[in-house]
Amino acid sequence: MVQRRKRLARGVAVIGAGISHFGAFKDKDSRDLFVEAFQSTLETVQKGIDPKEIEAIYVGNLSSDCFEGQAHIAPLMAEWVGLNPRPATRTEDACASSGVALREGIIAVASGLYDIVLVSGVEVMNKLTTARVTDILAAAADALYEVSVGATFPSLYAQIATAHMAKYGTTEEQLMKIAIKNHNNGALNPKAHFNASIRDIMNSRLAKAKERGQPIPSWTDQMEFLKDPSVNPIVAWPMKLFDCSPITDGAASTILVSEEIARNFTDTPIHIIGTGQASDAQALHGRKDITSLNAAKLAAEQAYEMAGVTPEDIQLAEVHDCFTIAEVLATEDLGFFKPGDGPRAAEEGRTARDGKKPVNTSGGLKAKGHPVGATGVGQVVEIWEQMSGHAGPRQVPGVNLALAHNVGASGSTVVVHIFERR
Amino acid sequence: MVQRRKRLARGVAVIGAGISHFGAFKDKDSRDLFVEAFQSTLETVQKGIDPKEIEAIYVGNLSSDCFEGQAHIAPLMAEWVGLNPRPATRTEDACASSGVALREGIIAVASGLYDIVLVSGVEVMNKLTTARVTDILAAAADALYEVSVGATFPSLYAQIATAHMAKYGTTEEQLMKIAIKNHNNGALNPKAHFNASIRDIMNSRLAKAKERGQPIPSWTDQMEFLKDPSVNPIVAWPMKLFDCSPITDGAASTILVSEEIARNFTDTPIHIIGTGQASDAQALHGRKDITSLNAAKLAAEQAYEMAGVTPEDIQLAEVHDCFTIAEVLATEDLGFFKPGDGPRAAEEGRTARDGKKPVNTSGGLKAKGHPVGATGVGQVVEIWEQMSGHAGPRQVPGVNLALAHNVGASGSTVVVHIFERR
Repeated sequence: MVQRRKRLARGVAVIGAGISHFGAFKDKDSRDLFVEAFQSTLETVQKGIDPKEIEAIYVGNLSSDCFEGQAHIAPLMAEWVGLNPRPATRTEDACASSGVALREGIIAVASGLYDIVLVSGVEVMNKLTTARVTDILAAAADALYEVSVGATFPSLYAQIATAHMAKYGTTEEQLMKIAIKNHNNGALNPKAHFNASIRDIMNSRLAKAKERGQPIPSWTDQMEFLKDPSVNPIVAWPMKLFDCSPITDGAASTILVSEEIARNFTDTPIHIIGTGQASDAQALHGRKDITSLNAAKLAAEQAYEMAGVTPEDIQLAEVHDCFTIAEVLATEDLGFFKPGDGPRAAEEGRTARDGKKPVNTSGGLKAKGHPVGATGVGQVVEIWEQMSGHAGPRQVPGVNLALAHNVGASGSTVVVHIFERR
Repeated sequence: MVQRRKRLARGVAVIGAGISHFGAFKDKDSRDLFVEAFQSTLETVQKGIDPKEIEAIYVGNLSSDCFEGQAHIAPLMAEWVGLNPRPATRTEDACASSGVALREGIIAVASGLYDIVLVSGVEVMNKLTTARVTDILAAAADALYEVSVGATFPSLYAQIATAHMAKYGTTEEQLMKIAIKNHNNGALNPKAHFNASIRDIMNSRLAKAKERGQPIPSWTDQMEFLKDPSVNPIVAWPMKLFDCSPITDGAASTILVSEEIARNFTDTPIHIIGTGQASDAQALHGRKDITSLNAAKLAAEQAYEMAGVTPEDIQLAEVHDCFTIAEVLATEDLGFFKPGDGPRAAEEGRTARDGKKPVNTSGGLKAKGHPVGATGVGQVVEIWEQMSGHAGPRQVPGVNLALAHNVGASGSTVVVHIFERR
């Protein structure tokens, strides 16, 4: 087998990144949200950019054909932001669709073919019922062996969670603390689907009960609130409602350029110094171990090696918390914590915004939201805002090295990127 | 606007290419056909290759989620050919999905990230009814402005055809001659969906009528046969049944390597010396002219410029004849013939296998078949076979420069590649 140190032919940098509002929008389709994200992206380019300079566009999207009856979305998104006749390509690797678009954009700039590329993601799901969305998403698992026997993603991640519990003693309370942490971050993110902490939600429910003259629930703290099955019902044990990311509509985009021209656009380009991608068996039963995602470990290894950094060096990470247990696996697979130590690390606040290793300062998929095809680039937007000092009340000071971790399905695709401010 | 001569950081070559049988297979899904294409591809690598040397896989596919209830097909196809944990990425640009996968594969090798890449395409549609397939395919047009008022691809290409007729006097008979030519080629392609000439089909119908004691139709030649509406009914005037490519299941793959290692695998690598891709308005009404595809002209321009060749230099071309009129536009947009001269060129046999400019020697989408996501790489397979001297009875002698032209939808994506044997 060919084994060589992976190198890109030339360096690539981010010069701007923006997202649409994330949420459930009955009256907006991909076109609307894509335009919103694109305009927001242009505004972040410090020295300005003429959109006509953009030479190609990559669009990550999971299933606009099933969700909106619109396939072939890449040239259409290009059309709506005035980028025809530029080459426009959609990538799809389930919920890693735009993480993979990012990788293709990086590769394309590195190849010498383009100097300036728009990388984006978009998904609109809320036109359909939750049941129908769940089915369409389930198709990203193994249709032959998993979906045919009733598997959906909550149930697949529930299996991962119970395996982690059995092996390491992980508790439901520890997972709840991840949801609380991510909601605390989302509360500070004006574009988040849930721009509210668990405490905010609890207080709002208490106030509403009072207002309506209904019996006042006895919750005194947010953990107690989350333990109330009327608030936080089981979806697929041990995954409860607040362990699951929401069905979100949204779009995100970022502009990549070759390193040598980056300072024409901004004084603070963010360099992409590592990229890794790996695949795995589609069905859980095809894997040796489900308390960890092998593809995540391999993708991280590739990215760390290319970047020449270690997990200890990473100062901030956006990871794929489609379910709370997925954040646990991410922080272990990325080498932030030893296998089985993820839950305790979260419990002790080590992944909080003011912790040693801030994870999902955006609110993560849990609170910021999970418009599946937009999630990978959405992570880049948070990293861009943090590294360029525009994260407002979420700002973590002095982030020079950050990481994005984007998972497709139950881990058959994982893509990892490492970003550096120099 | 940045305008510079596009160059790839390093050269890329094809070392093998193969397809599955193309056809309507009620009992096969993407997995089966993909494995068949992959095995056939490995067999074409003259000096052999260990699949473990393949470093990444690109899969073109239009809509396995809608057609087969299976999204996230890239890592799954990787799994079925033993390529996990290699990075596996799906590209989608409607019927140009695998032409675009090819381009991404080229870019990836050029970038320095990989030396050896599998590029592939797959589509299985025949599990569904023709009506349902037509609807799913229609989603690649503009859902908001075209599909919502009943447009399907036969009707969109019918508009293109009537515009061409109005402007240039193109006739239904001229279009029929393209179908006859492509069926003549398909009759010599053992993997074609329709491995039969129009004459074969006519003779078979005559024989059957005789055998059954039914009245013997009066057809004496194939053109007369095609003019019989009971044989060749109107789908969307002027597009009749035999103007339309069939609903085909199939897969195709090819292995790309960096130029410097190509001769480790074969004595006759085929170098990819030009690549071009462009987008256009999704809906026909958004274009200045529909007697030509602007994206095709632009993609061809890019590819010719990169390759440093002219249309006159091309000795053989596989073009996207999803409808007979599409082949007319292709041969004009690629600069083989002047605008409006395509129909006469076909009529005069200039695009026949023994003509000056052989087009679709494989049988084209019309006769070889059109498994939409596999079509772009399927074209590469024919070019590989022709250039490496393995095209059997279809062999065109001495092809040193060939071109592939792959269209998404009604032309909102077009990708063009140029191949050279040195």
